[in-house]
Amino acid sequence: MTEHGKNKGSVTIVLFSGDLDKAIAAFVIATAAASMGMSVNIFFTFWGLNAIKKEGGIIKGQNWMQKMMNIMNYGHAKKLALSKMNMLGMGPAMLKIMMSKKKVPSLHEFIQTAHAMRVKFYPCEMSMNVMGLKKEDFIDECQDVIGAVSYLSIAKESEVNLFI
Amino acid sequence: MTEHGKNKGSVTIVLFSGDLDKAIAAFVIATAAASMGMSVNIFFTFWGLNAIKKEGGIIKGQNWMQKMMNIMNYGHAKKLALSKMNMLGMGPAMLKIMMSKKKVPSLHEFIQTAHAMRVKFYPCEMSMNVMGLKKEDFIDECQDVIGAVSYLSIAKESEVNLFI
Amino acid sequence: MTEHGKNKGSVTIVLFSGDLDKAIAAFVIATAAASMGMSVNIFFTFWGLNAIKKEGGIIKGQNWMQKMMNIMNYGHAKKLALSKMNMLGMGPAMLKIMMSKKKVPSLHEFIQTAHAMRVKFYPCEMSMNVMGLKKEDFIDECQDVIGAVSYLSIAKESEVNLFI
Repeated sequence: MTEHGKNKGSVTIVLFSGDLDKAIAAFVIATAAASMGMSVNIFFTFWGLNAIKKEGGIIKGQNWMQKMMNIMNYGHAKKLALSKMNMLGMGPAMLKIMMSKKKVPSLHEFIQTAHAMRVKFYPCEMSMNVMGLKKEDFIDECQDVIGAVSYLSIAKESEVNLFI
Repeated sequence: MTEHGKNKGSVTIVLFSGDLDKAIAAFVIATAAASMGMSVNIFFTFWGLNAIKKEGGIIKGQNWMQKMMNIMNYGHAKKLALSKMNMLGMGPAMLKIMMSKKKVPSLHEFIQTAHAMRVKFYPCEMSMNVMGLKKEDFIDECQDVIGAVSYLSIAKESEVNLFI
Repeated sequence: MTEHGKNKGSVTIVLFSGDLDKAIAAFVIATAAASMGMSVNIFFTFWGLNAIKKEGGIIKGQNWMQKMMNIMNYGHAKKLALSKMNMLGMGPAMLKIMMSKKKVPSLHEFIQTAHAMRVKFYPCEMSMNVMGLKKEDFIDECQDVIGAVSYLSIAKESEVNLFI
């Protein structure tokens, strides 16, 4: 955390959800906070890990159960579903078009922007462990893999904590 | 924020969800905090905007996609569904009757009470923009339309921040 | 709150959700915080009450609506569903096996551990009232039943507040 960021306060978000709309809400808040000079941390856990998975690649997991969980749970920033009204996948497409007409960035663009603004991305160690995912399964913009204790050390110094 | 409210602390809630049970949880916390003299702000975003939409009226939206999104997403305080067990709409009716038997106010009554207790309602600018909604589509109890930066300016001065 | 806990800070979680994965996320954070010497409070509300219901027992509720709500909402720590991919109940079983292979405790074990680490469990008075549940319907590890005002008194002194 820079001296600058510390003075402006900080925001720490747990992104638990793998829904597109919730991931976008997290990144809208994260980039707005970064634009104000706040330091921003996102801790990706459970389904939230999908937002920072690399596109494509083989099905991950070391045994059939992890593989099956990851097939069902197959996602990356361009493929997340909505928390409501998914409608055979039409909902996310509509939201994406509506957002792009209004010049709101896509999740993929938000991730790039947030990274450029020094928002820190931390994948959750325990969730990766349970799902059989490794550091190399995630986009290069990620920081170190951390656990709940490290998350809490950051969170307790933050003015704004959110669980999304 | 009054001097009084400042001393007692403040609560800022992002209401993202359009589910009846979550909206009620937000208003239970908001009115309890207001009764303690805390200053309370609710930032309504994404599906949460449904809680403060005016009843009835025509389908909003400037193009067919926004219109379709708003038809699917058709709601106001008296029509929200439950996050679980909606059962063709029977769930919300049961919850409403059970709440009224126990003298718990309805969402509509909670909104009136919260407003009378000076809880501030802020609709989210970006969500309104994406969904093609305007200030006049919302109930008169709403404060100014604000964006994520203004939300964060309020949130970072609040003792309790929640994302619901 | 002990003097010790106060110095290390505190975490207060509202557990609103009755989903197994969200309950586990809450308990991972709670036990991690307790291991750091922080004081930790969990306020169980709405569907979150399922996590601390006693196993078995008769269907609770004083009238047919409450009984029906509690049948649909039938759960305790060993029976919660996932927020995603429930797949006729196969999802939770897989998650449990995957967690046990990785030596992550079950929700039931997390509850025992959290209690031993002095994490405080507060059932929400209003939710119990609406659902027709009584103090004796919950596991013995629970603290006093409290309302939203008492929750807020604790939350506003906490460094980390989360709504899960």
